[in-house]
Amino acid sequence: MAGNFEDIAKQFVDFYYNTFDTNRPALGALYRDQSMLTFEAGAVLGATGIVEKLTSLPFEKIKHQIATLDAQPSNEAGGILVLVTGALLIDEEQKPMNYTQSFQLVPEGGSYFVFNDVFRLVYGA
Amino acid sequence: MAGNFEDIAKQFVDFYYNTFDTNRPALGALYRDQSMLTFEAGAVLGATGIVEKLTSLPFEKIKHQIATLDAQPSNEAGGILVLVTGALLIDEEQKPMNYTQSFQLVPEGGSYFVFNDVFRLVYGA
Repeated sequence: MAGNFEDIAKQFVDFYYNTFDTNRPALGALYRDQSMLTFEAGAVLGATGIVEKLTSLPFEKIKHQIATLDAQPSNEAGGILVLVTGALLIDEEQKPMNYTQSFQLVPEGGSYFVFNDVFRLVYGA
Repeated sequence: MAGNFEDIAKQFVDFYYNTFDTNRPALGALYRDQSMLTFEAGAVLGATGIVEKLTSLPFEKIKHQIATLDAQPSNEAGGILVLVTGALLIDEEQKPMNYTQSFQLVPEGGSYFVFNDVFRLVYGA
């Protein structure tokens, strides 16, 4: 991945949700031992546990649709904060659920890994 | 503010929205020259511009209600990533709007300032 932080964020988000929707175990390549996931308040540390969590979610099919994507530099070392809002469809469900997800991407050897990952469904107020 | 990252995040978020809802100009104390705000895709750099943006939003009264709050350490220097979901009521409007907001807090002299701030309304899918 190359380019400015906005391009990198868009490339990452497209790749992340495409991988999530087609080959969840392959998401492991995006995390490291120090990576953190907070998924609906459940906290997991490290790539192995994160992939276990993501692959054990109780649905067969999922499709994410991105509504908004924002990015900012998160430090002077090239980190990127990303905030996504979107909708997802699970299995044969017809009604999408809204979600938000915040990532911090950290540079490593010409690419990036996910250091922070926080996911929440958004229910109507 | 003191305590672990989750306590600090909760203290910050309570203070932030209370200040936003009662005394918007005072939010300036939470930002620095290098702080970034992306508010509904509009990007602003620096405390002065951020306060101008926040105080010029076209409503008189606003009330935030937090639904969820998650936090993670964002680096080894004590930074904290915060993701909030919630609802807000503007002026005499009866129907709340859903929003999400992601912050990165950075330690400074025993307290914290807002380095990253990304706000988005969440519309039903």
